[in-house]
This record gives sequence, structure tokens and C-alpha cells, in this order.
Amino acid sequence: MKVYVVGLGPGGFNEITPRAMAAMEESDVIAGYSVYIDLIKDKFSHKTLLTTPMKREVDRCHMALEEAVKGKTVSMVCSGDAGVYGMAGLIYEVSQQYDPVEIEVISGITAACSGAAILGAPLIHDFAVISLSDLLTPLELIKKRLEAAAMADFVICLYNPSSKKRFDYLMKACDIIVRYRSANTPCGIVRNIGREGEEYKVMTLKELRNTEVDMFTTVFIGNSKTKVISGKMVTPRGYKDV
Amino acid sequence: MKVYVVGLGPGGFNEITPRAMAAMEESDVIAGYSVYIDLIKDKFSHKTLLTTPMKREVDRCHMALEEAVKGKTVSMVCSGDAGVYGMAGLIYEVSQQYDPVEIEVISGITAACSGAAILGAPLIHDFAVISLSDLLTPLELIKKRLEAAAMADFVICLYNPSSKKRFDYLMKACDIIVRYRSANTPCGIVRNIGREGEEYKVMTLKELRNTEVDMFTTVFIGNSKTKVISGKMVTPRGYKDV
Repeated sequence: MKVYVVGLGPGGFNEITPRAMAAMEESDVIAGYSVYIDLIKDKFSHKTLLTTPMKREVDRCHMALEEAVKGKTVSMVCSGDAGVYGMAGLIYEVSQQYDPVEIEVISGITAACSGAAILGAPLIHDFAVISLSDLLTPLELIKKRLEAAAMADFVICLYNPSSKKRFDYLMKACDIIVRYRSANTPCGIVRNIGREGEEYKVMTLKELRNTEVDMFTTVFIGNSKTKVISGKMVTPRGYKDV
Repeated sequence: MKVYVVGLGPGGFNEITPRAMAAMEESDVIAGYSVYIDLIKDKFSHKTLLTTPMKREVDRCHMALEEAVKGKTVSMVCSGDAGVYGMAGLIYEVSQQYDPVEIEVISGITAACSGAAILGAPLIHDFAVISLSDLLTPLELIKKRLEAAAMADFVICLYNPSSKKRFDYLMKACDIIVRYRSANTPCGIVRNIGREGEEYKVMTLKELRNTEVDMFTTVFIGNSKTKVISGKMVTPRGYKDV
């Protein structure tokens, strides 16, 4: 009668918290998008593992909740943090159609944090996290948020910066941001965070505009104070005696 | 000759990643603010533990880097994530005064994520993280960021919402935000995340305005879509078939 919504972090077991591992160990059923179940299935092969493909998020919640109301303990797993563009919200929403089920969200390390660590320290000061996917959000609202974040000099972290259909969205985003900050603003991209093929690149906003990224990439755009130190992207907090 | 900048997460050992634990185990020296060193000192009492009090962040970096250039492996520990208002940036900045030292940032779970998990799922959609501390940031810039985030309907997470000197800053922040969203917007506060005395409260923006908080509190302000489900704060991502 319980659903844990578990964030697995960037990918490797060494970035899954003991609390998240304990929840999965305690569970009868582990449910998730097939790619995330693949990450953990060897360790939990004695559990009932339930998967749905991408874009079947609502089905996945029903699947988990049906098991929970049958009396099972269920872990719904997500990459990164379950509460940042993850399944934690949807589980609460769909749960309203069921008898009361206890829900506990267990945080994992989201790509904003794991990606920032690889790039250096871009998120040391106020930042905005924006998804460029317009699958569930009107493009006009995304543009408004980009504009507001750029105007108020937030460091900006972009999730879902590209897809086949949205191949030019990062370019459009950069075109909005460059109206408010220098084309030489340090930016960074990180791909396959915590997984095989992990790579990062620090570049200017102008270079970022002309960079092709894919859906496995997280993008960071510095604020007016961000600088490059030893090839890394660093946003100062403002200590005067450095 | 290496400095790990390690995020300890919210407080308990069960939310420290194996990667963070391994870095501390590998280190000769563990440095940090005395409160964070207290959290881990029993487990690492065989290491050299170096502390400085609050507001001595630059000294703390020199202390860590001096050990590193002597050939030691050093972990600089921070609560939450080392890259979100943490020491990762300052270490890079101060390191420029030393011979080259390898720096590796290891993420932990930041209060935005651990607090969100306790409140339900407030950060499921685009969000802005803003510190209300004007110790290192001009108040005018903080206000500008609050206004921009409110205007563009970001969920807002506030760090450092109060201190003795800044007892009315949360009230001021709410007064800015309420110009752009309903006084009934669901909000939440979480105190002592992951530690003894952990508590949370879900309330309206109007109620938040008149709530006293302290420096151990993280504040969440919903966007126009955020709702309360089973007493928790939930921001929908926008799935239409729920």
C-alpha cells in the first residue's frame, strides 16, 4: 500500500543514495520507463519489474498504483530526481482516482546538479531551470520564461534542449538570451551525464547557438559574472576578498 | 594534489551518495564548515579534520588548497550540493593563486530537491532558485529576479529566506510575487530537511507572507497551475489524459 517515487540520479550505482536503494530493496514491484529499469534490473532481478515505453507516463502511474492498492510496495523509478520533470507529480495526480495510497518521494541528483559538477560550478548563484520541450508546454510560455530568466541575469539550465522535431529550439533560445547578455557569455553542454560516453564542452553563447545537441544533453548558460577558470565554467557567488 | 568538493545532501548518511563517501574515504584531509564536519566526524575520525566557522569561506578554501599543494588528497564538504550556493565555485576561484590542483566536484542533493520531495512535487515544471541573502548580492538584483520569476510563472524556490537582520525579506518577496499570481497560490516551507526536527507546512501565498521562517527553512512558491493534493504541493507537468 505504498508507492516510493525514486530518483536514480545520473546513471551509475555510485550516485544512487542508500535511501533510494533501500526503498527499491523493500519494494515488491519496481516500475519505470524501460531505459531506467535496464539500469537497475540486474541488481533487482528477483523483483517484479514493470516497464512502459516513453510517452506512456500516465499508464505507468496506473500500473504502479494498481499494484499498490493490491497491497504491494512499489518503487516508481526515474532518472535524475523524481521531482524535477519526473514522475512524482503525476503519481500524486493519478492517485486521486484510487483508494488512498501512501506516497513517498525520494530525491536523486538531477541533471542540473550532476551536469554542473562536470562543467565546474555554473550554478553557484540564482538559476532558472527551463525545459525546451513543447510537448506539454506552449512554446510562447517557454519563450517568455527564457526572456525573463535572461533579463534578470539568472544562470540558465536547459533540459530537453532538442529533439528531431525541435532541432532548432536551442538556437531560438540562444537568440532570445543574447538580447540580454554578451555573445561571449560562458556556456556549457554535458552529454550522457554519469553514463558511458560522458562528455562536456565549455564554449561561448555564440558558439552554443550553432551547436547541435541531442536529448541526452543538458545545457548551461552563464550569467553576466560567469567566467572560465582552468577550462571550467564558474559563476562567482560574490566574495570580495578572493 | 587533489581537491574533491563534496555535497553531503540534506543531512543523513542515507542521502549521501556512495561516490561522495568514497571521495571522503580516499581523502587524507576533510575540510568544511564546523556544522557539516560534525555530521560526518564520527565516521571519519581517523582523518585530519579541518574546520572554519561560518562566513570564513575564503579561508576554508585556502586551508584546503594548502593541504592539496602539499600533496594531500582533500575533501571540502558542503551540505546539499557543492555546486548550488556551495563551495565549488570559490574553490575554483581561489585555486588560481596556487599551483595547478585537480578539482573534482561531487554532487549531493540540494535543498530544492530534498525539500520538494517532502512537500510533494512542487518542482515538476520550470523553476527558479533564488537566495534572499543580500550579504553578497545587491537587494535590487534579488528583487528583479523575484519579479522576473513571478512574471514568467516559474515555480520559485527560496534559499536563505531569513536571518535576524533580514527578518522581513520573505514578506517583501511575497509582496512582489503576489502582484503576478493569486494570493491563494499553494506554497510550502520545509525546515531542518533530513535532520532532527524535520517539519513542513503547505499553505497559501497569503499565509506564507505572514509566516516567520529561519535560516534552516527552504521556501517553495507554486506557479499558476500548482495545486494541493492530499495535503501535498503538486505542480502538474501538463499531461492531458490524467
